[in-house]
Amino acid sequence: ARPRVGYYYTGREPRDVIAGVLGNIRVQEVQSRPIVVRETSTVYDAIVTMFIEDVGTIFVVSEEGFLEGLASRKDMLKATMGGKDINKLPVGVVMTRMPNIIVTYPDESVLRAAEKLIHHQVDSLPVVETVLHEGREKYRVVGRFTKTNITRLFVSLAGK
Amino acid sequence: ARPRVGYYYTGREPRDVIAGVLGNIRVQEVQSRPIVVRETSTVYDAIVTMFIEDVGTIFVVSEEGFLEGLASRKDMLKATMGGKDINKLPVGVVMTRMPNIIVTYPDESVLRAAEKLIHHQVDSLPVVETVLHEGREKYRVVGRFTKTNITRLFVSLAGK
Repeated sequence: ARPRVGYYYTGREPRDVIAGVLGNIRVQEVQSRPIVVRETSTVYDAIVTMFIEDVGTIFVVSEEGFLEGLASRKDMLKATMGGKDINKLPVGVVMTRMPNIIVTYPDESVLRAAEKLIHHQVDSLPVVETVLHEGREKYRVVGRFTKTNITRLFVSLAGK
Repeated sequence: ARPRVGYYYTGREPRDVIAGVLGNIRVQEVQSRPIVVRETSTVYDAIVTMFIEDVGTIFVVSEEGFLEGLASRKDMLKATMGGKDINKLPVGVVMTRMPNIIVTYPDESVLRAAEKLIHHQVDSLPVVETVLHEGREKYRVVGRFTKTNITRLFVSLAGK
């Protein structure tokens, strides 16, 4: 049979190729290690942890390790500008709290996770697994998905 | 003549398609508006400008409008943690100063600019045009290229 060149050509338009690749790569393949502090940590200690780990967003977890909130450099900058004593202020006071947090999942496509970053205007998503704890759904934090992961992927997809 | 299917197929492997697309899109097609302050601005005023404009990095320019430095949220956080009076401290004291700044150009490929972001571990590049001023090469800031631009491009390339 004659090769259906036209068919294959149409099916491999750049947009389709890119959509296919990005739709098939999972968050867990490119995610970073999550950096977490406890809700009782001070703002000062949380900022120091962010500097040491060089992350733009820190996740705040309960004693049992479940996601309670997150704080960005912007949140921290607002806190330090506010004139309060950040050596005494708990990070729980300045963080964005559950359920107002956009999350992603290990098996979500990087394309869908990237759409969440853009749509919700955030720099970082906690990668979570849903678990049942005392009859309630909780999030266990297993990773961090950021615009840096996308930029790295972007470079590596086109790399030699 | 018989279509050279194998040839075309090889030439359109996903990696080649992606490299071709990313290598052909220029920084000026996706860049954002640069947000600048003067070197004599206080750290406080620079942070307020960053909040109002919602940018993670601010560019610092001379009286003539040439790039002198840049400051990130991290630089600002360090400054506010340092115990100095940010209402008096000029942003010039805390910024990263020329020539220690990685820049990009309007006609550079987004792939090359993305590589710079990753390699130099920065979140934002000033997009500049080189001009001759009093016998010296200076940078005029014409845009801002960030991981957000890449994330948006990533989504739009695969979008419907």
